[in-house]
Amino acid sequence: MYSFNSLFTILCFPFLLLSIFAHESYTHRARGPCKEMVFYFHDIIYNGENYKNATSAIVGAPEWGNRTIMSSPNNFGDLIVFDDPITIDNNLHSPSIGRAQGMYFYDQKDIFSSWLGFSFVFNNSDYKGSLNFAGHDPLMNKTRDISIIGGTGDFFMARGIATLRTDAFEGSVYFRLHVHVKLYECWKLL
Amino acid sequence: MYSFNSLFTILCFPFLLLSIFAHESYTHRARGPCKEMVFYFHDIIYNGENYKNATSAIVGAPEWGNRTIMSSPNNFGDLIVFDDPITIDNNLHSPSIGRAQGMYFYDQKDIFSSWLGFSFVFNNSDYKGSLNFAGHDPLMNKTRDISIIGGTGDFFMARGIATLRTDAFEGSVYFRLHVHVKLYECWKLL
Amino acid sequence: MYSFNSLFTILCFPFLLLSIFAHESYTHRARGPCKEMVFYFHDIIYNGENYKNATSAIVGAPEWGNRTIMSSPNNFGDLIVFDDPITIDNNLHSPSIGRAQGMYFYDQKDIFSSWLGFSFVFNNSDYKGSLNFAGHDPLMNKTRDISIIGGTGDFFMARGIATLRTDAFEGSVYFRLHVHVKLYECWKLL
Repeated sequence: MYSFNSLFTILCFPFLLLSIFAHESYTHRARGPCKEMVFYFHDIIYNGENYKNATSAIVGAPEWGNRTIMSSPNNFGDLIVFDDPITIDNNLHSPSIGRAQGMYFYDQKDIFSSWLGFSFVFNNSDYKGSLNFAGHDPLMNKTRDISIIGGTGDFFMARGIATLRTDAFEGSVYFRLHVHVKLYECWKLL
Repeated sequence: MYSFNSLFTILCFPFLLLSIFAHESYTHRARGPCKEMVFYFHDIIYNGENYKNATSAIVGAPEWGNRTIMSSPNNFGDLIVFDDPITIDNNLHSPSIGRAQGMYFYDQKDIFSSWLGFSFVFNNSDYKGSLNFAGHDPLMNKTRDISIIGGTGDFFMARGIATLRTDAFEGSVYFRLHVHVKLYECWKLL
Repeated sequence: MYSFNSLFTILCFPFLLLSIFAHESYTHRARGPCKEMVFYFHDIIYNGENYKNATSAIVGAPEWGNRTIMSSPNNFGDLIVFDDPITIDNNLHSPSIGRAQGMYFYDQKDIFSSWLGFSFVFNNSDYKGSLNFAGHDPLMNKTRDISIIGGTGDFFMARGIATLRTDAFEGSVYFRLHVHVKLYECWKLL
């Protein structure tokens, strides 16, 4: 028994010490997400004639724009507030399992590009709580990542990345995003 | 050899513990906050006639709204920039110990709900620095949580949750929020 | 005495590991940044006559303001969307190595102060990915810190602080910021 303990100590310590020196206290290595989820959300932009169905509206625009038609070129400067249904599949008319609520604005003159600040809000039997997102969305790229900067309820203190893919785009009135949520930092409150 | 082994064990324990810590980088268990604070802040919305007292103003609105009256229904699409005094008690006229500065916008058509992006800014003998907040605020709920996504100065790199409670609400001109700040991630710069 | 040491090792290991894990999970001590970078970015605000050169535009303003002249006093309530070139040196005409894209708004009536939500977007041989920023910017201070709340690509899950310094300010049309990025939380996806 003594020699086993001794061997363990002698063999394992240098190894573990080395790993300490390799990882500084602020360096994190993630093997994969601690939680993954996939959703769709659906945005119908108010164009002056679709008030009833619209889930979003332009609330800010540059001097050369207005609040019923996207500004030209590339919607630059248009700021949109949205309250979009989240669904499990790609059907707008499927039962919504939550809401995507927040804003986006177009922030590039020479190409379509936007910046998002919004939340996924859940209050169903699977999930209760919110995930908060912020970041750059270069929407002409097939997929792009934005930051998940925090969460509440079931997603208390969560951080991660969401991979966005535009799943449908119909003129300037409807689009549908496929969202792959990948949390790399999960918390439990004991 | 025995005493060498003993010494080695005693000296290396803390390192071993630390190395474990570095490996499980994305899983966190919190027993409670590393820092808690309670404040009130006071918002007086510009309505076209109260410029001198107003601490906030509508700066964006949907096509059917304007910048002196909240849009109907449920203020949807109104974006407000604010510079509100923070007090220790619920009295608007108490000395302010900091400012809550940022924006909120109403993001739901069928109920009052908002999204916040703002900072608490302190420069007094107790606290110097800022805390940055972002997230969904379903303001009809008695209490609701938003994310604390970062901080500077005394709150360097802080993360946590703030529990909001509407402490008073007078028409569409004045409201007062009770804010319970709970930081679960605190940092020290050595 | 040997058996005491042996027992201590065997019994206390799991105990101490667990307690560290539960208690210290939210306390971080940083010796210094895991990554530092220095950049400049350049903002040319649309004033009604410089459409071609402008990199930003007012898209929201209080009732007493408009979208071609900053509101008075202290630009309070003006919300600006920007798409600014990032350069290595302080020359606007140097090759840009990325874009700073997002928004800022002025949020104080009695002094110049703003709030920023934006990204640094890189797609060059050195860096691919984005850094997302949010926070209070008291721009009359010589230097001030804002939060880096997340990142993607080469900056996957990064957090930190950026120290801003106004390097030039020409009327209300051009300013140049010196940005010292200091990441204190770096991640690698294995």
